[in-house]
Amino acid sequence: MTTGSGEPIDVACPLDVIGVVRTARSDIETTPVQAALNRTERGTVEIFEPYVEGLSGLEGFDYAWLLTWLHRPGDTVAAALTQVPFLLRPQQRQMGVFATRGPRRVNPIGLSLVQLLGFSGAIVAFAGVDLLDGTPVIDLKPYVTRFDRPTGEPRCGWFDTVPLPEAVTPADLGHDA
Amino acid sequence: MTTGSGEPIDVACPLDVIGVVRTARSDIETTPVQAALNRTERGTVEIFEPYVEGLSGLEGFDYAWLLTWLHRPGDTVAAALTQVPFLLRPQQRQMGVFATRGPRRVNPIGLSLVQLLGFSGAIVAFAGVDLLDGTPVIDLKPYVTRFDRPTGEPRCGWFDTVPLPEAVTPADLGHDA
Repeated sequence: MTTGSGEPIDVACPLDVIGVVRTARSDIETTPVQAALNRTERGTVEIFEPYVEGLSGLEGFDYAWLLTWLHRPGDTVAAALTQVPFLLRPQQRQMGVFATRGPRRVNPIGLSLVQLLGFSGAIVAFAGVDLLDGTPVIDLKPYVTRFDRPTGEPRCGWFDTVPLPEAVTPADLGHDA
Repeated sequence: MTTGSGEPIDVACPLDVIGVVRTARSDIETTPVQAALNRTERGTVEIFEPYVEGLSGLEGFDYAWLLTWLHRPGDTVAAALTQVPFLLRPQQRQMGVFATRGPRRVNPIGLSLVQLLGFSGAIVAFAGVDLLDGTPVIDLKPYVTRFDRPTGEPRCGWFDTVPLPEAVTPADLGHDA
């Protein structure tokens, strides 16, 4: 698999890859854990040529969901069904994987809420970086407030019990067990 | 592929299927187009036995993202990169697929925001139905307000220009072109 700029993406993905994320990040331990906790940092999505037409109309939206494939080269073991999320490293507390937003999942699909900044041909500029450079993109969906915002202030489980500092990275939270 | 209740799922999916959606819906034309437009209708997710442990901790959340595989038997043609979304059928207006939330996508991954009602072993009861009975589930992620809610009132493109009636279905919006 190669990108528009000709650099190979060294990731096997069972889905059609529509593009690639370009960021200044290459190490997961020092990359912020969520786009919303790192709203000002910028990145781009390079949409591959066959799919560029599918962007039409997205320029009218302020935010989009970036669906990505988070499998990393070398990750050959199955994701554990219970694991210590980055944000619970200080407590070393286990959670079921479906109660986490972590990258090591049964299907390693990432869901990042990014702010759309501009469009130039196949390039989508965005703010809100939690992805490594070279991450394959599998879908883009517009953020629609009427669909994506629950009413009221929902309970958010264990996330309600931990600090969520701006731009926090796994390395800030201690070592993996 | 079979479900916990032994009924086969007649859908090929290149990902690991972790469970299946059970709803009273079997016809896409008469199924509400978005979970958030049909908040009161109930369904369940049956998580397959090998993955049940991954639910641990999800009971503390009021909402979750249900990621599903929307490929239907018989859909053998590639999804068009521009198409008329259900909600633009009255105007017969085309949009790029990445500016829509429709099911016919390059990778037919559905993203449904559901309200979690209760857990009983492998069964997750939820409210907010936009999925057909038998839809394969590929991931569950907790809704985290801090991650998933943009600040302010973002522009939502063409969705800001059309009515979004409660429980609207494709059939309510006219015929496919």
